[in-house]
Amino acid sequence: MTYQETNIEGRNPVLEAFRGGRTIDRLYVQDGLQDGPVLSIKREAKKQDTMIKYVTKERLDQLSETGKHQGVIAVAAAYRYAQVEDILQRAKEKGEAPFLMLLDGIEDPHNLGAILRTANLAGVHGVIIPKNRAVGLTPTVARTSAGAINYTPVARVTNLGKTIEELKKEGLWFVCGDMNGSSMYELNLKGPIGLVVGNEGEGVSRLVREKCDYRASIPMKGDIDSLNASVAAGVLAYEIVRQRG
Amino acid sequence: MTYQETNIEGRNPVLEAFRGGRTIDRLYVQDGLQDGPVLSIKREAKKQDTMIKYVTKERLDQLSETGKHQGVIAVAAAYRYAQVEDILQRAKEKGEAPFLMLLDGIEDPHNLGAILRTANLAGVHGVIIPKNRAVGLTPTVARTSAGAINYTPVARVTNLGKTIEELKKEGLWFVCGDMNGSSMYELNLKGPIGLVVGNEGEGVSRLVREKCDYRASIPMKGDIDSLNASVAAGVLAYEIVRQRG
Repeated sequence: MTYQETNIEGRNPVLEAFRGGRTIDRLYVQDGLQDGPVLSIKREAKKQDTMIKYVTKERLDQLSETGKHQGVIAVAAAYRYAQVEDILQRAKEKGEAPFLMLLDGIEDPHNLGAILRTANLAGVHGVIIPKNRAVGLTPTVARTSAGAINYTPVARVTNLGKTIEELKKEGLWFVCGDMNGSSMYELNLKGPIGLVVGNEGEGVSRLVREKCDYRASIPMKGDIDSLNASVAAGVLAYEIVRQRG
Repeated sequence: MTYQETNIEGRNPVLEAFRGGRTIDRLYVQDGLQDGPVLSIKREAKKQDTMIKYVTKERLDQLSETGKHQGVIAVAAAYRYAQVEDILQRAKEKGEAPFLMLLDGIEDPHNLGAILRTANLAGVHGVIIPKNRAVGLTPTVARTSAGAINYTPVARVTNLGKTIEELKKEGLWFVCGDMNGSSMYELNLKGPIGLVVGNEGEGVSRLVREKCDYRASIPMKGDIDSLNASVAAGVLAYEIVRQRG
């Protein structure tokens, strides 16, 4: 997950990169180009919240590595998704009990970015997110992660519940944030652990919650319903840090 | 700080409300009005991130309480700033040692909203923010606070350092978040306490830091520089909750 920028040049390659889900950091478009393929590319860029910069043909020629840019160059960041095995391997290499975070449907890119910052600084070996109904590694996530995206691996899986079952076979325990759970201060959160954090509105989904070994609540002394999702993730993650420390 | 909406009707009253720093939740403007005073009002509304709704004269007549709306009705939320004394009084009434949060220049309304949520749920008696170079109680803050703004008092002061000195006379200790400080797990954070949280970019300013009794750091095991400001505030506040518990 080191940060490496790659130019993607020419209309078809750029359009394919967008449609293939590649994370594009920014898009250079030649001033004044308005034809169909360029409009399609711009539409994809907007959909994915990519910054578009309009530049002269001369500037594009300078930026081009192939000399065949056809008026568009996309700068792709190498935010590649990791595999779950890579994350376990990382813990092993560090000689530490695995500490994973699983995010059950975080939708707000600012929250995901903030959670990746927390994961990085809390010493989490990797983060697992679902493929559906959740934000992925978009440019906004990359920006709000303040660089964490380049260090902390993120794996994307089809079924979070199934991944939990597989990881249990590797010896991990799972604890989810749940306001009806036991106080996090009273649980033993040491050892190989997966912390499951719910989404902004509904918390951890029932199917995922039922796979968890423990339910941990953050003490709530106030009047409102819940903490911001990234704050809750941070408070829970650092309780694990404290107990492991 | 209970939530109460008030209509402000007519061009001068609405303009004065904006300029006087009153928090306006939303602004109704009669379709098609483009004269000078209305444009001034719309400019103030945009500056303050207020939602503008364009409606027919008939709809305004319905909404109007005075019948003299002149094409504009502002709906003001009663987000009133508290006094520092009110916050201490609140702790006293609850029979608890005061627990305050002081925010040294939070600029992002989403962060302030998230911190108010945390303050409410962590049992903080009140939050103190500076008048300058910091976001106040804007509609975005109100929205992202998820209701906390209606329960947890917020005081605004001219000089945070001076306020700290005054509160020390009331018996409070101050701890600031500082990555060069002692580990928060090793500090005694019980008793009447003010937690000082720095801004997004630079942390706690030197002058404020020098007024603090302790500097608490959150253990950092990763590669990047810092947590998101609202996450850091949450982790520190909950370490205080744990120790007080």
